[in-house]
Amino acid sequence: MEKKDQLLSINIPESHKPRVVIVGGGFGGIHLLSGLKDDFQIVLIDRYNYHTFQPLLYQVATAGLEPDSVAEPFRKMIGRNRDVCFRMVKVDRVDPEAQHIYTTAGSLSYDYLVIATGSQTNFFDNPNIAKNAFPLKQVTHALDLRSHIFQQFEKSEMIADEQVRKRLMTFVVVGAGPTGVEISGALAELKNHILPHDYPQLDVNRMRIFLVEGLERVLPAMSAVSGGRTQKYLERMGVEIILSDLILDYDGKTVRLRNGGEIETDTLIWAAGVNGNLPDGFGEKSIFRGKLAVSETCQVYRDQKTRDVFNNVFAIGDVASMSAEDGKGTLPGLAQVAIQQGRQLAANLLRINRGEPVRAFRYRDKGVLATIGRNKAVAEFPGKICLTGWSGWLVWLIVHLWFLIGFRNKAVVFANWVWSYVTYDRGIRLIIRPSTKSTDPVSREMTGEMREDI
Amino acid sequence: MEKKDQLLSINIPESHKPRVVIVGGGFGGIHLLSGLKDDFQIVLIDRYNYHTFQPLLYQVATAGLEPDSVAEPFRKMIGRNRDVCFRMVKVDRVDPEAQHIYTTAGSLSYDYLVIATGSQTNFFDNPNIAKNAFPLKQVTHALDLRSHIFQQFEKSEMIADEQVRKRLMTFVVVGAGPTGVEISGALAELKNHILPHDYPQLDVNRMRIFLVEGLERVLPAMSAVSGGRTQKYLERMGVEIILSDLILDYDGKTVRLRNGGEIETDTLIWAAGVNGNLPDGFGEKSIFRGKLAVSETCQVYRDQKTRDVFNNVFAIGDVASMSAEDGKGTLPGLAQVAIQQGRQLAANLLRINRGEPVRAFRYRDKGVLATIGRNKAVAEFPGKICLTGWSGWLVWLIVHLWFLIGFRNKAVVFANWVWSYVTYDRGIRLIIRPSTKSTDPVSREMTGEMREDI
Repeated sequence: MEKKDQLLSINIPESHKPRVVIVGGGFGGIHLLSGLKDDFQIVLIDRYNYHTFQPLLYQVATAGLEPDSVAEPFRKMIGRNRDVCFRMVKVDRVDPEAQHIYTTAGSLSYDYLVIATGSQTNFFDNPNIAKNAFPLKQVTHALDLRSHIFQQFEKSEMIADEQVRKRLMTFVVVGAGPTGVEISGALAELKNHILPHDYPQLDVNRMRIFLVEGLERVLPAMSAVSGGRTQKYLERMGVEIILSDLILDYDGKTVRLRNGGEIETDTLIWAAGVNGNLPDGFGEKSIFRGKLAVSETCQVYRDQKTRDVFNNVFAIGDVASMSAEDGKGTLPGLAQVAIQQGRQLAANLLRINRGEPVRAFRYRDKGVLATIGRNKAVAEFPGKICLTGWSGWLVWLIVHLWFLIGFRNKAVVFANWVWSYVTYDRGIRLIIRPSTKSTDPVSREMTGEMREDI
Repeated sequence: MEKKDQLLSINIPESHKPRVVIVGGGFGGIHLLSGLKDDFQIVLIDRYNYHTFQPLLYQVATAGLEPDSVAEPFRKMIGRNRDVCFRMVKVDRVDPEAQHIYTTAGSLSYDYLVIATGSQTNFFDNPNIAKNAFPLKQVTHALDLRSHIFQQFEKSEMIADEQVRKRLMTFVVVGAGPTGVEISGALAELKNHILPHDYPQLDVNRMRIFLVEGLERVLPAMSAVSGGRTQKYLERMGVEIILSDLILDYDGKTVRLRNGGEIETDTLIWAAGVNGNLPDGFGEKSIFRGKLAVSETCQVYRDQKTRDVFNNVFAIGDVASMSAEDGKGTLPGLAQVAIQQGRQLAANLLRINRGEPVRAFRYRDKGVLATIGRNKAVAEFPGKICLTGWSGWLVWLIVHLWFLIGFRNKAVVFANWVWSYVTYDRGIRLIIRPSTKSTDPVSREMTGEMREDI
C-alpha cells in the first residue's frame, strides 16, 4: 500500500471552477456528464475505461453481438475537453463529512460528489450460488457466459455418460424480469436456429431451458396481458417456465428449488435481483434496503428519518433509492430513471452554481420493454398502451439503438441485427477464453488444460 | 485423469470411409479441409473452436479490429456435413507407429494423420523474456496486449514519478519482419492520431517506440529497396529503429541489449521468431530445427537421413520443414506455403485413395507483403516487381480481405477499415480484462484490485 501511495496519485489539475466528481459511468453518470456545461471541472471515475450498454449484454452472451459494440470508451466520449478528467480507478471509500474520496490511486476532494455506481448482482447471501451462478452485469460476465454456453456443447459431443450430457445441455435462468426473459428467449433461438447446424452429432432437441420466477407470473413489473403473452411466446419457443418458486441452493450441478424440485444443470444464469453497488463510508442512516436513500433533489440523506441531507453529495440511478411521487414505494431500477436523474441533476448543479433554487425530480414514465426473440417483444407505455409481437419488437429495436452510445456502435449493432435477421445466423460463437466456472471435474480438467498456455 | 478417461471420449462415429485426422485449424488445416471431398471421414482437432487469421492480430492489439472479426468458428465452416467432426481438445501425444493420437478427451486411431499445428513464439529459451514479453500468436494475446497498451496510458496520467511515466510510455518491438513492422507502425499511428485526443493531460509526444532487429536491416526477408523504404516510413512516423542488435534479457522493466544498450520499458512485444508447435511422440530423427522434417509430399520422415517416411503421417505449414526446390534452405514460414501445402495434400490424399500416384509439392512464390500504416505498405512479387506506398497498401488490403475466412468477417473488417480511414478513429480501445503481465508493483496492485470482482 505504501509503495502505491508513493507512486500513484489521482493527479487532477488545479482549476478555479468548482469540482464535480462523478463515480460511475453508467446511464446516470454519462447523461449527467453530457448535461454539465463548462461551468465545472468534472472528474469521472470508473473501474472500467468504457461505458457498458447493459441492456444488450444478453446478446453478447448468446453470440449475437461483439463485446466491443456494446461498450464505448469514456475518453472517446469526453474528447479533448481539458476540464473533464477520466480516471480508471476504484473508489475504496467516501468521506462525505470531510468532502473526500479515497481511491486505489490516492484521495481527492470535491465540491460536489455524485454516486452513480449502479447495482450489483444480489445472490441473496448464498455463497454457493455466488460462486457457481453466472451474473450478467459486465462485459466480462457476458463473455464468460458465451464461452461457457458453447463449451457445454463441445463437451456434450464428447461425453459418453447420458446423465452428464443431460446436465450439460440444461440451462436454468432465474428471474423472469426483462433480462431473464431476454436471455431465455435468446437461448431458445440458439437452440432452434444455430446449434442444430453446429452440432449435427447431438440431438439438440434435448437441450432444456428453464426460467424460474419467484412471483406468480412472467414479467411481474408489467401488465398481466404482456406477461401472459410473453409466457406464451417463450413456451412456444421451448422454454419451460416455473412460477412461484425460488432457488434455495446450487452446488454447480444441482439446483434445489423451494417447492422441493431439483434440476440438474451446469449452467445457472442469475437475473433475479440487484443490490445497490455502495461505496464504503455511508452510515446506516443513509441506507435504505441496500441503496442510498436520496431526497427528491437526489441529495443523499445524512439521516433519512430526520430528512437531513448532505448538501453536496448526490446519488442517481440504481444505487439511489428515491420515493415515488405517489408515496408508494420507490422508483424502479430502470435505465430511464438513471438517465432522467442524470439530466435533472446536471440542470440542478448548474442552478446551484448560479445561485438559483433547485427543482425536485419528477420521473416521467416512458414505458417498459422486453424482447423475447425474432419479431417478438412486449412494450408498454403510459396510458395502458401495449404493443406485442412485431410492433413491440420494432419499438424495442429503435429504442435500444437510440440509447446506445456512439455512432459507430449504433451502426455496428444495426448491421449485426440486419445480418442475423436475414440469415438466421450468429457470427460470434467463439470461445475466446474458456470459462472455468464449473464444479464438474471433467470440465475443470478440460478447460484447465486448455487454458494452460493462454 | 482416471475420472476424465471414464467420462470424456473423443466419440467419433463409425464410418466405412478412411479417416483423416487433421490436428490444427490454421491456414494449412482449413485449406486441406476444404480441399478434401466426400471420400473421407475427417476429424479436425484444435484447442480453440475457431480459426484465427493471424496476419491481422496486430490490428486487434492496437484497437483497429474487434477480436471476433479475425476469427471464424470451425463449426460454422463445416456446416451440417456428418462426415466432418470437429473436436475442441488438445493433442497430448502422437504414436505414428501405432497409428493413434492421444488427446485430453481420449485416444483416436487414424488412416491418415496431418499435423498442422503451426508455430509458437520462440523466446530463445530465456525464461525472463518468456514471462515478461508479449507474444502475438493468438486472439487472447492480442486482447491482453490491447488492454496492456491502454493501461499504460491510464497509469501514466496518475503517475507522479517522471522516470516511471517514461517507462510506461516506452514500447519496444523485437523483430523487424512483417509482424514487427506492422505492430510498430500501428503503435505510431496510435501515438499520432488517437492518444493525443484521449489523453490531453499527457504529453503524448514523449511516447517512444523502438523496433529492434538482429540483422542489419528492416524486413530482412524482402529486398533492400523495400527494407529501406519501410525504414524511412517508420522513422518518419516516429519509430526509433535499432539494427544489428539483440535482446539479451528483460526483467519486466529494463531491456538489455547485446551491444550494451538498455531501454526502460513496461512493454516488450516479441515478434522475433517462432518454433514449430510440435506434438509429443516424434523422435529426433524426424525433427529438423524444431520442426517436423517432411518429404516433398509432406510426409513426415521417420528418419530424415535415410529418407524413410511414415507413409500416412503428414505435416504442413509452419510446423513442417521442407527443403526448398533449389536445395538451398527450407521453405519460409508464410501463410502461402501452408495454404498451398494444404491444397496440394488434399489433392494427394484423394489420389492415394483412388490408387493414383502422388505429386511432389512445388511452392509457387506469390510475393510478400508488409503494411506500415495508412497508405503505406510494401509488396514484392516474383520477377522483382515491387510496389510501395499507396499501391502496395491497396494490394495489402485486397489480399488480406481475400484470405480472411467468412463473408461476415470480410464485411466487418472492410467496414472497420473504411471507418478508420475516413475518421482517423479506432473504435475499440477498451480494456475489457486488465492485463496483469507486469512486474511493476504499482501496475500489479492497480490491476489486481481492478480484477477482483471481474
